[in-house]
Amino acid sequence: MNEQEQWQELGQQLRVDSVRAAAAAGSGHPTSSMSAADLIAVLLARYLRYDFDRPQDARNDRLIFSKGHASPLLYSLYKAAGAISDEELLSFRKLGSRLEGHPTPAIPWVDVATGSLGQGLPYAVGMALAGKRLDRLPFRTWVLCGDSELAEGSVWEALEHAAFYELDNLITIVDVNRLGQRGETMHGWDLGSYVDRARAFGCHALEVDGHDVAAIDRAYAEALELKGRPVVIVARTIKGKGVAEVEDKNGFHGKPLDDATHAVAELGGERKLTVSVAKPNTEPARHAFPSGPLALPRYQPGEHVATRKAYGEALAALGLARGDVVALDGEVSNSTYAEIFREALPERYFEMYIAEQQLVAAAVGMQTLGWRPFASTFAAFFSRAYDFVRMASISRADICLVGSHCGVSIGEDGPSQMGLEDIAMLRSVHDSTVLYPSCANQTAKLIAAIVDRPGITYLRTTRAATPVIYEADEQFEIGGSRVLRSSETDDVALVAAGVTLHEALAAAEELAADGIACRVIDLYSVKPIDEQTLREAAAETRAIVTVEDHHAEGGLGEAVLQAFAGSESPPIVVTLAVRVMPTSGTPDQLLAEAGIDRTRVAQTVRTLVAERSTAAGARES
Amino acid sequence: MNEQEQWQELGQQLRVDSVRAAAAAGSGHPTSSMSAADLIAVLLARYLRYDFDRPQDARNDRLIFSKGHASPLLYSLYKAAGAISDEELLSFRKLGSRLEGHPTPAIPWVDVATGSLGQGLPYAVGMALAGKRLDRLPFRTWVLCGDSELAEGSVWEALEHAAFYELDNLITIVDVNRLGQRGETMHGWDLGSYVDRARAFGCHALEVDGHDVAAIDRAYAEALELKGRPVVIVARTIKGKGVAEVEDKNGFHGKPLDDATHAVAELGGERKLTVSVAKPNTEPARHAFPSGPLALPRYQPGEHVATRKAYGEALAALGLARGDVVALDGEVSNSTYAEIFREALPERYFEMYIAEQQLVAAAVGMQTLGWRPFASTFAAFFSRAYDFVRMASISRADICLVGSHCGVSIGEDGPSQMGLEDIAMLRSVHDSTVLYPSCANQTAKLIAAIVDRPGITYLRTTRAATPVIYEADEQFEIGGSRVLRSSETDDVALVAAGVTLHEALAAAEELAADGIACRVIDLYSVKPIDEQTLREAAAETRAIVTVEDHHAEGGLGEAVLQAFAGSESPPIVVTLAVRVMPTSGTPDQLLAEAGIDRTRVAQTVRTLVAERSTAAGARES
Repeated sequence: MNEQEQWQELGQQLRVDSVRAAAAAGSGHPTSSMSAADLIAVLLARYLRYDFDRPQDARNDRLIFSKGHASPLLYSLYKAAGAISDEELLSFRKLGSRLEGHPTPAIPWVDVATGSLGQGLPYAVGMALAGKRLDRLPFRTWVLCGDSELAEGSVWEALEHAAFYELDNLITIVDVNRLGQRGETMHGWDLGSYVDRARAFGCHALEVDGHDVAAIDRAYAEALELKGRPVVIVARTIKGKGVAEVEDKNGFHGKPLDDATHAVAELGGERKLTVSVAKPNTEPARHAFPSGPLALPRYQPGEHVATRKAYGEALAALGLARGDVVALDGEVSNSTYAEIFREALPERYFEMYIAEQQLVAAAVGMQTLGWRPFASTFAAFFSRAYDFVRMASISRADICLVGSHCGVSIGEDGPSQMGLEDIAMLRSVHDSTVLYPSCANQTAKLIAAIVDRPGITYLRTTRAATPVIYEADEQFEIGGSRVLRSSETDDVALVAAGVTLHEALAAAEELAADGIACRVIDLYSVKPIDEQTLREAAAETRAIVTVEDHHAEGGLGEAVLQAFAGSESPPIVVTLAVRVMPTSGTPDQLLAEAGIDRTRVAQTVRTLVAERSTAAGARES
Repeated sequence: MNEQEQWQELGQQLRVDSVRAAAAAGSGHPTSSMSAADLIAVLLARYLRYDFDRPQDARNDRLIFSKGHASPLLYSLYKAAGAISDEELLSFRKLGSRLEGHPTPAIPWVDVATGSLGQGLPYAVGMALAGKRLDRLPFRTWVLCGDSELAEGSVWEALEHAAFYELDNLITIVDVNRLGQRGETMHGWDLGSYVDRARAFGCHALEVDGHDVAAIDRAYAEALELKGRPVVIVARTIKGKGVAEVEDKNGFHGKPLDDATHAVAELGGERKLTVSVAKPNTEPARHAFPSGPLALPRYQPGEHVATRKAYGEALAALGLARGDVVALDGEVSNSTYAEIFREALPERYFEMYIAEQQLVAAAVGMQTLGWRPFASTFAAFFSRAYDFVRMASISRADICLVGSHCGVSIGEDGPSQMGLEDIAMLRSVHDSTVLYPSCANQTAKLIAAIVDRPGITYLRTTRAATPVIYEADEQFEIGGSRVLRSSETDDVALVAAGVTLHEALAAAEELAADGIACRVIDLYSVKPIDEQTLREAAAETRAIVTVEDHHAEGGLGEAVLQAFAGSESPPIVVTLAVRVMPTSGTPDQLLAEAGIDRTRVAQTVRTLVAERSTAAGARES
């Protein structure tokens, strides 16, 4: 057999194994795997540089199946590379198997989870960007996309950024099999429509017959030679290729073939080819940026400093201390104050423009190579990237997201700019961390604390300058809280964070003058939450009042309620939150309109104390 | 003055008024308004067809400021059109003024809120699609975009769909002023880069000098003549045009001019031009689709039917009954069962391909014209469009979103396809409705109930076929619940919905055999929630156990906890929810792994009853 015949045979093996894996599982996407089998066969046999024994080696090429449902093909590739056994291949989609329905990093050779379409390419942009600008290694990033997923805007955000950053180390292979889940795509086999788009977005694009291994070989060779631009290879393929019953037919997406035995026979039977995948050149060393001592900014208690400003200053300090810290922002760095990092460390700052999906995806991509990304935009605009955040948690990604301009307290800009769902959104992500500091010193300390935090970490900052309330040397643990006022005779505990903590403190001051004692708890760590301190407050006061600049659902108040779930004697908890549609106005006006200002907090406490006194009086009488 | 001079004067007036409005507010975006003033002047004076006295008239053109921060320009346009007074103009951004920082439908001539960039154009696609296919009226949809926002993938989803649906009634004006919030855009004044992209996406695109009123006039005339394709007019403009201090300079985004008086003088002073805006031709009548009696599908109790299937069948029935109902889906209509509607009513079905942002945006656009859209995809994938959902609530949009494949119960496909944050995401939207039926008859009734529901309504459907538990004639109110089992001596109340309701019922059955009585509450309306029934359960049982196929944060459990916020004696509430990272497996395996199956429910109740007995015993002894 000559080389091309070997590639064809390998393609058939990948098809056979895809069919077998789906048959064993009783579900899965064999036909979407069969269309791309020849593209992957040539890649594996001749172009991929990967050491399956050392997946952590940054010098490896990256391979991402953006069309994650073609997992049978990916797993068949692993088998062909000798990385998994045939037995493991057939554990596909079974409980306990790492070979899940869509790839996840439970598999050591998978960097990012895919399965939500249009995400693999944006992640790859982050990896390729790291390869060019951070690691400075010659690895290539290969992405297999489906044609259906090119309808996702995130794909065009990715190609736009790839071209802008001249990512010639990024090669996108589009498997144009014409058929989506429920029928034909918008463009069918009009390969030119994709090529034109990719070129207009600044990529080098070429068409290829995705079942002609010689043509595929030439396309890959051309891709490797090109400098200065990302390459998009648009391949005409046939869904279900090789099995007449399903070839190019609608209605066979996402299901095993009816007669797998017959299909395997039609494909020429099982094969036992093993590819000795070329390993990367291990000579180049990763670039490292200098590290140094950490000198966080220090603020004077009483001084007024916006926590967003403290974020920028702390991040710059952290970046000087740690060469692995990088920052990304979505064209609002002068509002989030990520610009302070950019000015200090321009090599490690990445402008992602107004493309929040790509912003988060680039962070996810970079962390696969060990970088510690901080991505910032307005809190509200992380909602644009929520699917990426959700998937990042499935990717076991370690990223820090920092959202500014939270809540009605931003004032005149109005509701479109107000983060009012961000805590709910981030809390509900698996194993996430949600922090909401109220003071510049606290913000700086928390920024330093989260750099090594696993999972998705979200920190919410405030637009307005607020008083510094903690000393610069105070330490803040993730999962902790601070009791700012307390006495043995506290009537009510006020639980707040961020801007409303200052309202709670003012209310407590006002109430103290009337003889009502309030405990004030700074719940800066919304998730994980300090259950112990809350329990003590519940035991030692008559009621808890939570107050937050966020909608009532899924926020700080419900986090407190959840902390008492299962409790034998849950306390009275009153949840003050934004329950109106905000408008424009001054911050103070809007806090009042939303019922989360000091006046409303004080009123609420007075009512509670009066009711409880009456109730107690009634019981005594 | 000839016509062109009048346009120039009008442009200057719009600039002057933008400067004055921002000066009066002390904030806002005058420079972003000044760049587009000439484009808007010519549009208003010659091309727009709009009756400001009859904003509800479907025959009006639509005008959307996708760059919502150019609100001073929009409000200055209203003044020039005689729709608002100068006094009102100067109320910009003040509490109580409808002229908010970014436009919202508090203003009668604003159809959709903007301010999150890259959204105006996708909404416009929905309006233009309605104009072509539903209303069948000759109105035009004009969109003013900024250049920065073209980095958002949603813009390309929109142009892709606009071209695919041949929306020649959609004219996009791109104000290329080169400068974003914090610096230059990716492409600066390279107008060709935008033109190439728009053409590759199937649009007719042209370049124009955005300060040459004659050229603008010619471009608009060309746009109106073109058939079969959307038009994109890429205009070279100067940010802050007309005031030397800020013209084409960085650092003046989003702030009033330092010396407004001087700037107004430099612009030639205040003017008092009023434009008599041409009204639309009121001859054409809106197309109406036939209506008829409502014949919802009926299912036999005991039969196994997936609620997603019932959704499709009920929606088709609703569509036959009501000519204003339309359906949209994101290329998964064979999974969501929206395909049943498509087959019955193809004229009112819109395939939005794998572009969830455009899916939701099209629904929002269509409802501005009075259509009642139902948009469906997997529950998980609405996270892709969360920013659009959030903004839709600010738009006061009335839309129904239906998410299938919720929770771990989908089984083998794995976590990327599981909606586990969707309740949190939708609950936290202002004034939203969140429903989660467990039975096909219930689903059908709820679909009929939500068609006239104001605001954002979300209904969650289940992949698996589950038993029909209600009679076809039973009625279900939004905000209601159903007590499926109860007695005077209930030990514990189980609160569930959807797939876990069936687990709760099975657990109750099992426990009854052991002499433990469970009340079972079907909490199909998660928001609004039936507080009364929950309060009765709290009063009449020892504890409440919630069980949901969703993450613990922001879901059904926290909705129940929130229902007791402020309560004088809150009950014991145990919240069973998904607290693990799911994998692939069978539905039953995954429900068990997540601790939300019948076995875990029964165990939880047994432990609760035992603890309470012990506690009671301890107190008695």
